[in-house]
Order: sequence, then structure tokens, then C-alpha cells
Amino acid sequence: MRYSQLFGKTSRQVPKDETAVNAKLLLRGGFVDKLMAGSYSLMPLGLRVVKKIEQIIREEMNATGAQEILMPLLHPKSIWNETGRWETAREVMYQFKKGDREYALSFTHEEILLDLVRKHVQTYHEFPVKLYHFSTKFRNEPRAKSGVLRGREFLMKDLYSVHTSQEDLDKYYEEVADAYITVFERIGLKALKVEAAGGVFTKEHTHEFQVLSEAGEDEIIYCPGGDFAQNTEIATVKEGKQCDLGHGPLLKVKAIEVGNIFRFGTVYSEKMNVMFADRGGTRKPAFLGSYGIGLTRAMGAIVEIYHDERGIIWPAAVSPFDAHLVHVEDSGTEPWVKEAYDKLTKGGVEVLWDDRQVSAGEKFADCDLIGIPVRLVVSKKVGEGKVEWKERTSDKTTIVDLATAVKKLSS
Amino acid sequence: MRYSQLFGKTSRQVPKDETAVNAKLLLRGGFVDKLMAGSYSLMPLGLRVVKKIEQIIREEMNATGAQEILMPLLHPKSIWNETGRWETAREVMYQFKKGDREYALSFTHEEILLDLVRKHVQTYHEFPVKLYHFSTKFRNEPRAKSGVLRGREFLMKDLYSVHTSQEDLDKYYEEVADAYITVFERIGLKALKVEAAGGVFTKEHTHEFQVLSEAGEDEIIYCPGGDFAQNTEIATVKEGKQCDLGHGPLLKVKAIEVGNIFRFGTVYSEKMNVMFADRGGTRKPAFLGSYGIGLTRAMGAIVEIYHDERGIIWPAAVSPFDAHLVHVEDSGTEPWVKEAYDKLTKGGVEVLWDDRQVSAGEKFADCDLIGIPVRLVVSKKVGEGKVEWKERTSDKTTIVDLATAVKKLSS
Repeated sequence: MRYSQLFGKTSRQVPKDETAVNAKLLLRGGFVDKLMAGSYSLMPLGLRVVKKIEQIIREEMNATGAQEILMPLLHPKSIWNETGRWETAREVMYQFKKGDREYALSFTHEEILLDLVRKHVQTYHEFPVKLYHFSTKFRNEPRAKSGVLRGREFLMKDLYSVHTSQEDLDKYYEEVADAYITVFERIGLKALKVEAAGGVFTKEHTHEFQVLSEAGEDEIIYCPGGDFAQNTEIATVKEGKQCDLGHGPLLKVKAIEVGNIFRFGTVYSEKMNVMFADRGGTRKPAFLGSYGIGLTRAMGAIVEIYHDERGIIWPAAVSPFDAHLVHVEDSGTEPWVKEAYDKLTKGGVEVLWDDRQVSAGEKFADCDLIGIPVRLVVSKKVGEGKVEWKERTSDKTTIVDLATAVKKLSS
Repeated sequence: MRYSQLFGKTSRQVPKDETAVNAKLLLRGGFVDKLMAGSYSLMPLGLRVVKKIEQIIREEMNATGAQEILMPLLHPKSIWNETGRWETAREVMYQFKKGDREYALSFTHEEILLDLVRKHVQTYHEFPVKLYHFSTKFRNEPRAKSGVLRGREFLMKDLYSVHTSQEDLDKYYEEVADAYITVFERIGLKALKVEAAGGVFTKEHTHEFQVLSEAGEDEIIYCPGGDFAQNTEIATVKEGKQCDLGHGPLLKVKAIEVGNIFRFGTVYSEKMNVMFADRGGTRKPAFLGSYGIGLTRAMGAIVEIYHDERGIIWPAAVSPFDAHLVHVEDSGTEPWVKEAYDKLTKGGVEVLWDDRQVSAGEKFADCDLIGIPVRLVVSKKVGEGKVEWKERTSDKTTIVDLATAVKKLSS
């Protein structure tokens, strides 16, 4: 992609109405645009990042045997009345009337999913059911000040599983927890599995996946040895207490919640009459689990963790491009940069080519702001058939053959 | 994919509350589930079809130089007030208040797109801008009786282009019209480009892409020679009139609108102050074009065109799977079907494997209902290392080597 053609360029201006680092850098880098507080458009660069996160999540969800579907966003009041959440979740849910019909917007999808399940599977041997979708969530956030970390509208992957026993639910719950750790590792986040309260979702304790960050809205107490972590909302111990396993004092830190998992058991199934016939033919309520990852929030969390004073530093797996190709405008080197772009692209490397007529300094500053892991420079000084290789995380530059660069980036 | 594992099986029951063929077959085949009138979940099979349509559209949009983004679905009242459509589109738009804020749901995205454009490009050399997204549209449909052809909520690709002159807009408008014909051809639809009224969108004439079908809600008058087509809403001529070019009498037929394209010119740009500086530095309003294809509607249109009394007949390009593998349960042939599945899958063929313990007759009926283009049977009679090849469009069966089947299906 030629940068001159890309919609959404970098900006030196720091957005005045944003306090969050993720929003400032994503806006300045041309990744997102703000429609209103808590609502952002994904520009081409931002969409590329989110699509990479989405594909990684898809692969890991499929690996657990889950199947992808897509559920509606506009729901009839009647279905929310079945569980009573039309009333209990009024604060967070957008509800409205049109003509003589009342609707709600998806703040979550348990009811819709359970409606699907009760219509389509009836007998024990058709369980467990594991379904997920990538879709939009709407939540009434009175204060939406954390950039893409907390939106009125945001993208989420939500997985639901329905089982014939608590044991089977528990087993899959752990499997999903492991898959979540893998997802977060793959997108560059070290997430802790933290015990937490269920909020408007359930009275049972649940688990959150928290990434340590000063930008986080949550606070957790955890053992640095990794055997204990609780959200302070429910914490039963105090900061500084010695870990029982001898790992030293417990720490209290701020964290960003990037995922959460819930065991609802049969609460909603009983209310919605989601039953299965067991081996003896007896009808019993099914066991529900629910598992979310915010895609746009994950992008924001990555930016909070991976940035410096010059800009974003994308982990390779979620970077919008593999390489940022910069042409220092020396006369006669036009064909060299064209050759570099063509060979990289043919080698399967995703390249953002800064082909603008601006100074090398401006281009380098934009490379640092946008944060693609590898910068490649073509210039007379570097020489024909070669590129200057520089990684975003280092100041070291080396001259490599174009063929070597293609090989390193496509492997 | 093993059919025994797939969520969303076939059903013999004809849905009582549906009159449209597309809805009946998509529901019975396990492609969609109905949440309420005009709103459907995409089950795994249906999502696969929609994803294939989406990818074809993406490729053709990218080929015109357009870039993919993603815009929000929840919009502040203020942006709709800028063009006056908060009032003029009240009927079709879902609008509501939460706290002291008023919102609308996306029934289209011109205003949001123009807001992006005015914030990000200012000078003539940054134009044209060509941006599209795949996203959800919400429209208040009092009568939603045509299955997935007309929804309260549906998936759409909308492309917007912004230009510095009417000529440049006109040129791209024709380019998109050609791309649309290509998209429809690739997904199996023969679409006519038809002159039409602009509805709530514009007072100018626009173009619709219409697929001839008795299930359509539109009526068009057209010349069978292909040089003339108008929606009867605006038609200036009558059925039976001789075509000026000697192609015979004009025909009046029902049709399904699968796409539409609009030239708004500077109407909204003037209202929203979307300006560019020309070569001389003078600020002028920009020229807007808008181009939509309904993805879920396209799926419905395909079903209306391609079905028989036994079920759906998917064109290969949008079929949820390339082949439907059926095992006739003869003892000792278990390894044969496993081998067939593995070799096909390794060859890049997407296979739905009916591994259930039900009669061959039931499996064959399901093949016809689901409508995958090629059915492959493994049985003792067919023999080891071989499959019986039958196409959905024919009753002829032939025995072919497994290797030949892999080769034919993967090419």
C-alpha cells in the first residue's frame, strides 16, 4: 500500500478531548477517528489491526471446537423479559420504542443464544453446544474517557457454551481460559486470570483476564508467583500479605480487563426453558457458560503496553503491516524502491510504502508514530539491491540485501 | 466438517410464519434462524455463504482502489441534524433517547462518512476518497415479509466516494456500476442496471441492480436487448412498446433489488461543509457518491433464483462447502470415507461430511435441501478409493477415482 493513497494520515496535533494514551496515539497515527465520546470509526490502519486480532481469536476458538455464527444486534423486549434483564440491566442497555414495538440493543447475547439453542437442540447427545460470533456491543457508559478501552459501542468476540452437566461446563470453562491465555500471548499481551465479581451478569464469581497497566480502570491484588489474583472488588486479602506458597508479598496494581469468562449454570436456562432430554428421557435445564474478548479494547490495551514517547510499537502479529518502506528521495533511486516494494509484496510481505514527497526526517517520525515493527530504507547511500533494516524497538540500523529482507520478513 | 457436529440441522417442517421461498429454504436448511420478523441469526452454514459473498465484494471493491474501514452503528442526533435527515428519514430510522442524549441507529452512513472526510482531507490532491465497510443497517420495516430480502436489521456493504468534480464522480460511478455487475456475476446473479428513484436518499434518479424474480418487490420495464431498464416507479414508457433499437417489445417483470448506486453531488457536502481547496486555493464543496449491496439480501436472492422443489442449488462460488460427502453405512467402509475426507480436505476442498447414523435416503434428501453443488458417495458398491460423483443440478451419477475428485474440486 502506498502511504500517499492511504486514508488516515498521521497528525502532530495531540487531540484535546482525549486523556487516554491509547486514544491519543491511535488518533494521531491515523488508526481511528472519533465520532463521539466512546465511539470510534476504524480507519484502514485500525481495521487491519482489529482484523488480525480477530483472526487469531477465530483460530483459537475454532481449536476448542466452537463454531462461528452471527446474531442480531436489535432484540425484541420479550426475549429480555424472559430472564428479567429488561429491568435489571436497564442502566447499561439501550432500550427504545418504535411504533408499538419495544427493542433493546445488544449489550450481550446470552438470551439470543439460548433462544437458538432451545429451538435447535433437544437431546443430551446434541450437547455441548459451542458457538461464538464477532459483533457489536452497545453499552450506556456515562463516562467514556478511556479511549477505545471503554466504548458506548465496541467490537467483541463472544463465545457461549451450553452443557448437560456442571462438570462438562467446568471442563470447557478451563479449556477456554487456556485458549484465552494463548490468544493474549499471540497478540502480545501477558494476561493474568483474575477472580472477580460478575457485575450485571451473574452473582457468581467469574474470571477476568487482566493486563497490568497504569491505564487500567481495574485494580487487582496478585501474587507475583502467579498462584493468586483477585479483583479488589472481591479481594479477601490485603496488599503486602505474604503469599501462602512463599512467593513474597501480594502486590496491588492497576490493570486493563481484556477478557472475561462466566459460568451461569442453569439460572437463565431455567428462566428461558432451555432443556435437554437426558439418557433416561428426563428433561433437565442446560448449563451455560459465556466468554468475552473485546477486540477494540484489546487493540487499546496493546497500545497502552507497547508505546514510547515517539509512538506505538506493534507486536508483529497484530501490526497493520509487516514492514514500513521509506524512500529517501535521491534522484535515480526511484526504480530501486519500486523493485523493493514489488519483491517484498511478491514474497507475501505486507508493506506500507511511504512514497510521499516529504523529508526523510518526517517519514522517520511517522514510522515511529505508526509503529510497524520493521522499517526499511531505500536510498543512494544504502545502495542498489539493498535496504537499511531498523526495528522499531531498537536504534540499530543494518544494511541487508533486499533478498535477505524478503526472506526474513516472509518467514 | 462433520455434519453430526454442525449446529443447525435440516428440518422437514415448513415454517408457518414465512411466505417467502428464501426464508423457508434457508430456515429448513439450517442456514438462518429467525429472532423476530425481519431479523435473522446466521447459523454456521449461512455465515459461510455470507462470508463468501463478502470476500467477492471485497475483492471487487479493492480493485476499484477503495479502502476498507468500519464506521459506528450508533450515531449522535447532531450529525443527522446537519443534513436534516433526523427529520426527513424519521420513518425509516430508529431514533431514541438515553439520559439527555439522543441517538439514531445506522440506516445508512453518508453523514458519518462525510464527517470523516471533512476531518481528514482538505486539498484537491487528496481526492478522490473511496471508502467502504461491511456493517449492519437498521431500518424500520412495518411489513417484513420477504424473509432475508427485507430486514429490520441486515448486513450491507456500503461504499462512498468523494470527488472534486461531477466528471470525476461520474467516471467512478460507472466504474462501480461495472464492478457491481462483476460482483453479481461472480455470485451467480444476472443483474440488470435499472434507472430508479432515489427514495429517502436523493431526489435525483439513481441506478438499481435488479435480478428478475417473481419474489421481487420491485417491478421493472426493460428491453430484452439490454439497452433500457427502468423501475416502474419512474418509468416513462409502457410495457409492450417497441424498443427504439429494434429489440422488440419492452417487458414488465418483477425483480429483486440487490444493489443500488447514488450520485448525491454536493447536496450533503454543502450542508455539512465538506470542502476541498482547489489548485487556486478556493474552497469548494465535494461531490459524493454512495453505493450499496445487501449481503444477506444477496443470499436470499440467490436462493430465490437457484432452487427446486427439493431445496437450494448454490452456485459454487458462494456454496457453504465445495462438496457434500455421504457415507452409506456399509460395514468395513469406515476407513474409506475417512480417507476420502482427509484427502479432499488436504487438497484444499471444503467438505461437509454427513457422518450420521441415518438412512442413505435421508442423507440424500438433506444434500438436496442444503444444496452444495457436488455430492460424493462412499459405499461398498462404489468401491475402495472411489466416490460416486453427482452434481446438484443433474440426476446423473458417475464413479470416479478419489484422486480425480480431489483434482476436480480443488482446481
